[in-house]
Amino acid sequence: MDYQLTCPAGDDPAAKASAIAYEQTVELPHTCLTPGVVGTIVGRVESLESMGGARWRARLSYPVAAIGGDFLQLLNVLFGNISLQRGIRVTDLVVPDAWLANIPGPSFGIAGIRQLLGAEAGRALSCAAIKPLGLSATALAQRCGQLARGGIDIVKDDHGLVDQPSAPFGERVERCQEAVERVNAAGGGPTLYAPNVTATADEMERRLEVVRAIGCRVVLVSPLLVGWDTVRVLAARGEVAILAHPSLTGAFFHHEHGIAQDVFLGVLFRLIGSDAVIYPNAGGRFPMDAPTCVAVARRLRQPLGALRPAFPMPGGGIDLDRMPAWLARYGPDTIFLIGSSLYSAPDLEQAANRFAAGVRGSPG
Amino acid sequence: MDYQLTCPAGDDPAAKASAIAYEQTVELPHTCLTPGVVGTIVGRVESLESMGGARWRARLSYPVAAIGGDFLQLLNVLFGNISLQRGIRVTDLVVPDAWLANIPGPSFGIAGIRQLLGAEAGRALSCAAIKPLGLSATALAQRCGQLARGGIDIVKDDHGLVDQPSAPFGERVERCQEAVERVNAAGGGPTLYAPNVTATADEMERRLEVVRAIGCRVVLVSPLLVGWDTVRVLAARGEVAILAHPSLTGAFFHHEHGIAQDVFLGVLFRLIGSDAVIYPNAGGRFPMDAPTCVAVARRLRQPLGALRPAFPMPGGGIDLDRMPAWLARYGPDTIFLIGSSLYSAPDLEQAANRFAAGVRGSPG
Repeated sequence: MDYQLTCPAGDDPAAKASAIAYEQTVELPHTCLTPGVVGTIVGRVESLESMGGARWRARLSYPVAAIGGDFLQLLNVLFGNISLQRGIRVTDLVVPDAWLANIPGPSFGIAGIRQLLGAEAGRALSCAAIKPLGLSATALAQRCGQLARGGIDIVKDDHGLVDQPSAPFGERVERCQEAVERVNAAGGGPTLYAPNVTATADEMERRLEVVRAIGCRVVLVSPLLVGWDTVRVLAARGEVAILAHPSLTGAFFHHEHGIAQDVFLGVLFRLIGSDAVIYPNAGGRFPMDAPTCVAVARRLRQPLGALRPAFPMPGGGIDLDRMPAWLARYGPDTIFLIGSSLYSAPDLEQAANRFAAGVRGSPG
Repeated sequence: MDYQLTCPAGDDPAAKASAIAYEQTVELPHTCLTPGVVGTIVGRVESLESMGGARWRARLSYPVAAIGGDFLQLLNVLFGNISLQRGIRVTDLVVPDAWLANIPGPSFGIAGIRQLLGAEAGRALSCAAIKPLGLSATALAQRCGQLARGGIDIVKDDHGLVDQPSAPFGERVERCQEAVERVNAAGGGPTLYAPNVTATADEMERRLEVVRAIGCRVVLVSPLLVGWDTVRVLAARGEVAILAHPSLTGAFFHHEHGIAQDVFLGVLFRLIGSDAVIYPNAGGRFPMDAPTCVAVARRLRQPLGALRPAFPMPGGGIDLDRMPAWLARYGPDTIFLIGSSLYSAPDLEQAANRFAAGVRGSPG
């Protein structure tokens, strides 16, 4: 694991790196340990180099014996207690292939989602959200139909749509799926509708039954709300592809302390089985820069044991006029998520059509 | 909800507050909304005042219609998307009593844990952890026995102890519970042993069966690892009291962006049903200041609908010489967690005895 350490004057980077190695494993100082424990369990500082100024890069390794086969314990060792310190940022995470063999990861991944859509390799995909919260199920379903007619590949619930009285889950999901199926049956699409199933454990099961009954194959989930392992369990069933939403994740993205975006969204979210990961695109209303956005995409697609690659889903700030530049930046294995700008257009279907065509690289 | 906004030169605090109200509910600009949605769903900026310098305090209210009855959606509305912004810190969270009526909260709370221990109101409790990871189950159980003989009220697993080969869960937990029961049967204690059940969903169920079978009544859980709702479900069963560990929470505690410690550990952790909440004490090896530590304790114990009050469990930096000062700071409804300093002593049992006696306010 690589950590970026920020050491104000007087802080010794070597001592800080060593303290991490002990804190994240034995939680005891060296003097309280037997040589056996030091040799087999305590993390090791492999290297330490200056990054200029007050910053240092520390490479640590942890024995598999400290982690076991458990993803949650990996997270705990990676950043559990030291989250409560300051000036420590995880910038890389490398896990041995033998350990990865226990981690199934995405059940669909890029190829699986393409198959659900019949979308050949080499073309990027489009996604848009139905919104806002507050509209009735009927009104949301109408927007769903307009987006599907516009040729959007995946129409998803806004992540704030759960089971509010304005559009209760069952009613909303049935009507939206119906609207999409009507368009598909008429020869459009195919468009997939992805309902948000983020909920408490029992409610999520109930909602997944509805989803199964009406034949949806893609769902939206916020991992930091439902919990890491809930996503893993859902992915392992292999019934629905998972679009992971970054709600709450931004707390980890401070530039001096936390977990780097590409590690968090590109590695951790993939390890738990996300088939596609939503995140803010540079230039939108959230402060992400272009290199970070590209790094997340790279992590999601790069080799990682036997895990399937997952789709990056950058959203926001994707202006149609520069679509070729966006395609060049992210490459074809990308789901482009269009944000609220679609709803500022005078005609939703027409705007969706321009966006979907732009993403396909063809004139609208 | 109160947010502390940090607005660098050029940032308009009123615009920032208003953007939060829209971002956290409808995720659309005002111009894309019907008056009905604006009136019933969008958050409202109730007040905005300068805190001096670049800081502002914005009080926002959100309609219950935007949240429904769901704790996860409360979290989502509170900080979900804006976590990805910068300079926004949640400093207060007030929920209506009617909404709280759906939230059971802690099943044991302060009175319930006192009852398990037969510890009368008015005296503080002591807790110590068995460590380090890497020792065998037998060696850990031996330490467990020493701590129990020393008179520690609750002996808990170190939170990094899961199911590693050095001390597999079943073996460790059986031997530790046995060690504690032996001391209790000999007229010591009573001491409660609290195993760490933090694990993936299926594993956690398996471990809870072991816990049930051997008669443990208290467990340790890391909510940010197992997931918010997993704690809620466990609490609702009412079988075991829950000590919540702050692993990963520190990512939220940046002074300009995140969720204030007292809101996170004192309100959110209590809402999901933690009976006691572990957090770093000022003066230990983590950067928490005294007012923050006291604020967490106050939140855990203050009236909150019909929810039971929960124990604060400050840990680290609690030196025996100043025990009266610590008792004065935190009050008797506190579980004092002693960290690694116990293991630096030449005799663990004796050190435990001094600590336990100090916490009881009696000479050791």
